[in-house]
Amino acid sequence: MTAAPAVKPGEFRFSAIGLAHPHIDDQCRELIAAGGELISVYDDDPVSVERFRRKFPQAAPARCEREVLDDRRIRLVAGAAIPCDRAALGVRVMRAGKDYFTDKTPCTTLDQLAECRQVVAETGRRFFVYFGARVSPCALFAQRLISDGAIGRVVQVIGLGPHRLSAANRKQWFFVKRQYGGILCDIGIHQTDMFLSFTGNPTAEVVASQVGNYASPEYPELEDFGDMQLRGPNGATGYHRVDWLTPDGLGTWGDGRAIISGTEGYIELRKNIEIAGERTGDHLYLVDRTGERRFDAAGLVEVPFFRQMIRDCLDRSETAMTQAATFAATEIALTAQARAVRVGDSST
Amino acid sequence: MTAAPAVKPGEFRFSAIGLAHPHIDDQCRELIAAGGELISVYDDDPVSVERFRRKFPQAAPARCEREVLDDRRIRLVAGAAIPCDRAALGVRVMRAGKDYFTDKTPCTTLDQLAECRQVVAETGRRFFVYFGARVSPCALFAQRLISDGAIGRVVQVIGLGPHRLSAANRKQWFFVKRQYGGILCDIGIHQTDMFLSFTGNPTAEVVASQVGNYASPEYPELEDFGDMQLRGPNGATGYHRVDWLTPDGLGTWGDGRAIISGTEGYIELRKNIEIAGERTGDHLYLVDRTGERRFDAAGLVEVPFFRQMIRDCLDRSETAMTQAATFAATEIALTAQARAVRVGDSST
Repeated sequence: MTAAPAVKPGEFRFSAIGLAHPHIDDQCRELIAAGGELISVYDDDPVSVERFRRKFPQAAPARCEREVLDDRRIRLVAGAAIPCDRAALGVRVMRAGKDYFTDKTPCTTLDQLAECRQVVAETGRRFFVYFGARVSPCALFAQRLISDGAIGRVVQVIGLGPHRLSAANRKQWFFVKRQYGGILCDIGIHQTDMFLSFTGNPTAEVVASQVGNYASPEYPELEDFGDMQLRGPNGATGYHRVDWLTPDGLGTWGDGRAIISGTEGYIELRKNIEIAGERTGDHLYLVDRTGERRFDAAGLVEVPFFRQMIRDCLDRSETAMTQAATFAATEIALTAQARAVRVGDSST
Repeated sequence: MTAAPAVKPGEFRFSAIGLAHPHIDDQCRELIAAGGELISVYDDDPVSVERFRRKFPQAAPARCEREVLDDRRIRLVAGAAIPCDRAALGVRVMRAGKDYFTDKTPCTTLDQLAECRQVVAETGRRFFVYFGARVSPCALFAQRLISDGAIGRVVQVIGLGPHRLSAANRKQWFFVKRQYGGILCDIGIHQTDMFLSFTGNPTAEVVASQVGNYASPEYPELEDFGDMQLRGPNGATGYHRVDWLTPDGLGTWGDGRAIISGTEGYIELRKNIEIAGERTGDHLYLVDRTGERRFDAAGLVEVPFFRQMIRDCLDRSETAMTQAATFAATEIALTAQARAVRVGDSST
């Protein structure tokens, strides 16, 4: 479903800094679709800038980061830097008086998160993160069903986020733990955001977490498996697994699932594919007191995230996602990562 | 798939003691189908005996338990007593020189388990348990695929065992914790057996476990939610959830699932139903390097458990399931139950 742009032409100009991950293309494309105007780009790698400008020729190449930060026309900087550099970039952007929209994961350490929180408080700027559940039609439809009471009180969320490794297409930083931050930090953060939003908790305790490398001895710093168990103040629990183990035979990059159990029913999301079935994604199954139903969520909900983010920047509102929720999801993922027990090695 | 009986008529006679749970009907029916001859029955509730004898008129009603235990024709006693009484019954059966086949859960405390182990060692008798994965075509087919290396090294097992409460049809002991033992003990034990067999571990550590009552305040001793995280010596991990939350609208008693992730592929079991799809069970999905496949496992494997159990009694072999594995699955479930953190209560 499409919707009208959030602004008139020229009302919301933004720039891109940090092109390390191709997610930046999606971030910019969606901001443009929502009415934003991409006017410049900077990265210290000219090859990345050239690649980016083939897709977005309207983005003028800046000579340095400062040129973008000093450009008073720009309201927001979108970025997908190397994960360990994202927080510092955000700090510079916010100190320059602009809002920031980074690819996940926004931070790789709890110290970085503390600094981001402090700079948000000091500057009043916004620090947005590109979380999967905020732009997924089936996740948004699930959220609506839950809010409407379709499954009663939420008891538990199970989230599975398998990904295909595709090692040959990855940049070097992808395999360096200090740079990507660990698997729970890097891709587990989608899960922590999902847990908080589906269960309606402002935060969560990490009950247990694990990481390991089962299938990639050639990349010793890669974690190809991670999981975490969460518990929220309202009594709901979560179990979340992420991995880089998607086999080549699957028709998409990962068979993402979620099962949300409630006191009066449950919901299953098959986000990307039906195994040996439909190639499309966004399938939602609802089982309640009256029966079993299957929905193709893509046609049933719109994704207001990017339009809301633009309005939030202009109106200083919090409709896309609250700043507190963004940082809470980040903190839980970083905490789970920091405490994770190493698994996968045989002890016998 | 059917198979020839394991014995000739008259070669293997058995009896039933303890009719508290209707699983006893399945236990007896399958033993008879495998060639066993049911010759007597005892329970201290004459109404239960009468109900049982309407299905199994060949079972002569014994006047007391001793009459069965002293009957030298009987090789094995099958039972589904109240869970807290199953171990003691097994001890009496084995001390009387007979093998024992109990419904799960076999024990409700670690002390009971210790006594069962000791009496098995003393008497040389067998203590069999009716575990779901041992008689499930899709679980057996998964086991075969795993053994054949279809998904590489097993990284993780996720097992979901939701059940319908149907409170009106339950006997009083079902709601008394001392008698049913807690949810991880009662139905979690299917999961611990599955974890050990799918991952090829002789035992497992309980990383974390939780139990709670979310939807049944009128039954304060009922646990309607439980989960546990396991870790085996070979490095494989497990996450297992059981509950009594199946909504009335589901076309069967529970949407049992398992997802087995390996280094080279994964398997999903949809044990009982396809939501909003087929009403049959035993669906197995395999995703590997070459593609995605769906199997109807019911037609692809036979279930040798009962024939093997009868042969094990006669030959003193261990083909159905080893005694060590039976007790290991029991110990893990009881340990998870004993250590479980209580959840479900709001802390805010």
